[in-house]
Amino acid sequence: MSASRDIDALIDMMARLPGLGPRSARRAVLHMIRKKELLLTPLADLMHHVAVSVRECETCGNIGGARLCDICTSEKRGTGEICVVEDVADLWAMERAAVFKGRYHVLGGTLSALDAIGPDELRIPRLVSRVAEENVTEVILALNATVDGQTTAHYIADQLEGRVRLTSLAQGVPIGGELDYLDDGTITAALRARKEL
Amino acid sequence: MSASRDIDALIDMMARLPGLGPRSARRAVLHMIRKKELLLTPLADLMHHVAVSVRECETCGNIGGARLCDICTSEKRGTGEICVVEDVADLWAMERAAVFKGRYHVLGGTLSALDAIGPDELRIPRLVSRVAEENVTEVILALNATVDGQTTAHYIADQLEGRVRLTSLAQGVPIGGELDYLDDGTITAALRARKEL
Repeated sequence: MSASRDIDALIDMMARLPGLGPRSARRAVLHMIRKKELLLTPLADLMHHVAVSVRECETCGNIGGARLCDICTSEKRGTGEICVVEDVADLWAMERAAVFKGRYHVLGGTLSALDAIGPDELRIPRLVSRVAEENVTEVILALNATVDGQTTAHYIADQLEGRVRLTSLAQGVPIGGELDYLDDGTITAALRARKEL
Repeated sequence: MSASRDIDALIDMMARLPGLGPRSARRAVLHMIRKKELLLTPLADLMHHVAVSVRECETCGNIGGARLCDICTSEKRGTGEICVVEDVADLWAMERAAVFKGRYHVLGGTLSALDAIGPDELRIPRLVSRVAEENVTEVILALNATVDGQTTAHYIADQLEGRVRLTSLAQGVPIGGELDYLDDGTITAALRARKEL
């Protein structure tokens, strides 16, 4: 009896994931139960591991397993360039394109008057202090080509003007589009053709 | 570092669920990590509970938490009618229609020469013994309107002929359609208009 309630609760919770609804959640849960040893148990274990170990990098806001993320601690990544993205999905999209060799700064969203999100809700003060403290020569604003994204880019540009070279992703980002949906080639082209603000 | 690998492994495994691909798995995993306390941890707990407690009903093949499932042990369900379905998703579809008050028999698939699935791979011998042992007056074959489903229905009808009233779901099941995708009204109409084989 309790198992049936657990199954129903599991379906309800799976249905809350983006891209899944009640019907696809039912199919996913049945599939997992049929492949209990191969899928359900390992998935539960992995989720536990991730829930326990995952944390935000204190420097850039990327997710990882330690105080600083893999990119911030990597000796292969240059310290001169910081690429500013809205969230971790956008960072992953940049990394899939594999064209940027500097470090990142994940804002955690965009400025939004409607949702009452100001600079302090985002990681903007930390970005300003990084530019002051680290040996930064260029800040690349790789924000989504939406109204909120561009508003945020302009705000950051105002904050950092005169202190560092400021660029933004250029050609290829379609108006209204989001980074996470772009193909790698478009991201590469946009990074290569970045222009002064 | 290990956390990044865990996250990648989690994405790979989520992408194997039906209805999810690599991109939607990435979005789902990021969403879960952002809502760690609300989603990731409870989901991992639920999956563990389900993985540990779920088992197949020894009588009908439905999934539940004990030797016999909730439906087989319910005193509200009649013992005279058995509804034969291919899998648990089909049983759930019948239950959502809430029109059938008897018990079920989940075959676990259909006969298939191509996949080398014979009667013994399914729960067909158990169905024949249930009809002999329990006080069954009618067997309703609620199999999908596919070639394999109808082949299986004919095989079961041959096995049980003369021992019990045999019916099948009638109007409303579209050719090539699957039970799990039907709306409740169609399932209700099909159950009401069931006809003798």
